[in-house]
Amino acid sequence: MTKELEDLINEMEEGSVRALARLITMIENREKGWLEVMKAIFPNTGRAHVIGITGPPGAGKSTLTDTLTCELIARDLSVGVIAVDPSSPFSGGALLGDRVRMKEISTMKGVFVRSMATRGAMGGLSLAVRDVIKVLDAFGKDIILIETVGVGQDEVDVVKTADAVMVVCVPGMGDNIQAIKAGIMEIADIFVVNKADREGSERAVLDIRLMLNMSTEKGSLNIPILKTVATKGEGIAELVTNLFEVLESQERETSWREERIREELMSLLDKAIAHHVHVKLGRNSKLDTAVKQVLARERDPYSIVQEMVASFVH
Amino acid sequence: MTKELEDLINEMEEGSVRALARLITMIENREKGWLEVMKAIFPNTGRAHVIGITGPPGAGKSTLTDTLTCELIARDLSVGVIAVDPSSPFSGGALLGDRVRMKEISTMKGVFVRSMATRGAMGGLSLAVRDVIKVLDAFGKDIILIETVGVGQDEVDVVKTADAVMVVCVPGMGDNIQAIKAGIMEIADIFVVNKADREGSERAVLDIRLMLNMSTEKGSLNIPILKTVATKGEGIAELVTNLFEVLESQERETSWREERIREELMSLLDKAIAHHVHVKLGRNSKLDTAVKQVLARERDPYSIVQEMVASFVH
Repeated sequence: MTKELEDLINEMEEGSVRALARLITMIENREKGWLEVMKAIFPNTGRAHVIGITGPPGAGKSTLTDTLTCELIARDLSVGVIAVDPSSPFSGGALLGDRVRMKEISTMKGVFVRSMATRGAMGGLSLAVRDVIKVLDAFGKDIILIETVGVGQDEVDVVKTADAVMVVCVPGMGDNIQAIKAGIMEIADIFVVNKADREGSERAVLDIRLMLNMSTEKGSLNIPILKTVATKGEGIAELVTNLFEVLESQERETSWREERIREELMSLLDKAIAHHVHVKLGRNSKLDTAVKQVLARERDPYSIVQEMVASFVH
Repeated sequence: MTKELEDLINEMEEGSVRALARLITMIENREKGWLEVMKAIFPNTGRAHVIGITGPPGAGKSTLTDTLTCELIARDLSVGVIAVDPSSPFSGGALLGDRVRMKEISTMKGVFVRSMATRGAMGGLSLAVRDVIKVLDAFGKDIILIETVGVGQDEVDVVKTADAVMVVCVPGMGDNIQAIKAGIMEIADIFVVNKADREGSERAVLDIRLMLNMSTEKGSLNIPILKTVATKGEGIAELVTNLFEVLESQERETSWREERIREELMSLLDKAIAHHVHVKLGRNSKLDTAVKQVLARERDPYSIVQEMVASFVH
């Protein structure tokens, strides 16, 4: 490791937000040296609690994240927020709304906010988020909130890595329930019906309870369903209490932690091997030849790949 | 290949829908022999045109797909429909609504409908869809429609493989525009404002045009924005005309086809190598040891993976 990088890590561990931000960018973009950073900080990780916040667009996740952050800060906890935004291919970055929003809580003492885009995360979004979590953890954050729009497998994979997952809904979701159902329901530790001062909030609670009753997942009958009005701070204290209960109960489960480490190792391994293979393929003309053969239908892609596998793997 | 499998492929190529359905299930589940099937049918592929249909929930994609299918059948074309459904983790399958719907068009002569779930597709959804497309192609379908709820990278990857992509919107989408923007806009060949008899349809057209004007993508200014009322069949003939124009223009671009083959080869290779590695890891206790070391923070996952890569790859 270079002296410069070593200094940067030391600065970060001594509390420099500038160094923290710089290291995160480096890791997110897989800049030269990122692997050394991850190795260096790893021994200092494992203390932070990670909370995943997800739900359909318009459920008020951002406001809820803000209010929750304020409540945690008031309880003398330091907070890191990772907002996973669907990127706009037109502006080339995250959605403007979230950017504006984040400025507010990011000025609070003890809060560090980072926006990550679903596109462009080198090496996969869920791995990148896990890496950023580790850096925030090493920095000394007590609680790390990960906020995502809960659609698509990518985002499910992201919140799955959290110690506790809250799914945020609103009364009268209609079609949106479809988007939530896909893979999110089964990973929820807590349901939140936000904007609960609106009509239909009791109905929304019942709908969720009904779905949970139909589930075959272990423990789904005991999942709390809470009502909040994030804009007014209503229900937030109770939410925090419930979140802490989930965090405490999960701390006991070694098998659950082992399973997550296993998944992470496999993902890291898959990515590392794929990277290795892509670099090697880029250096020879095998792939170009193969593409032309498939286009001309002289050979099928499946036989070509079988042959390639044999040439790469022991 | 077994005699039985050979017979099944022959039956399929002679027009047996039963054999077609059986082979698709086999390939989707990666049952023993699937690779042989893919190799055997590959020389008979490459004739079908693939159209991707995507957009937010509630845009009327299903109805539009049905109406489009009827129009294509009326023009003496045979049609295959692949409906990619967000799976419900509670019912364990695709969403009921789509299942019911599909019964209607699936009784039409010359139409084959297949529902594929986003979860549980062994080896990745977009690869599985590509494989099913090839079988439908070998079966002799002229047009293959792929319908997805355009959210999440998985689904973007799926429609990206189509020869032409139509993005379906509705007037007054509000928050939903957020979900579309993420990675879908840039792959659209045609925009459709469906339910155009509703208030705000002209506004929706303008909003899309505005977004396209802001885009830096090549050719985005020439992307057609059409209005349809799928339930009444309005605008469908013009849509078909526009789709055929896109299909014809893209047939010329060899570089575009080469790029797609390259992507497919790389995805197949990544999956095949990962599979190989997972099988090997399953046979020894290296991974178990690694998990325990990481849990105890004796070693970091990054160093372990680096070591593993070296032991697997040339």
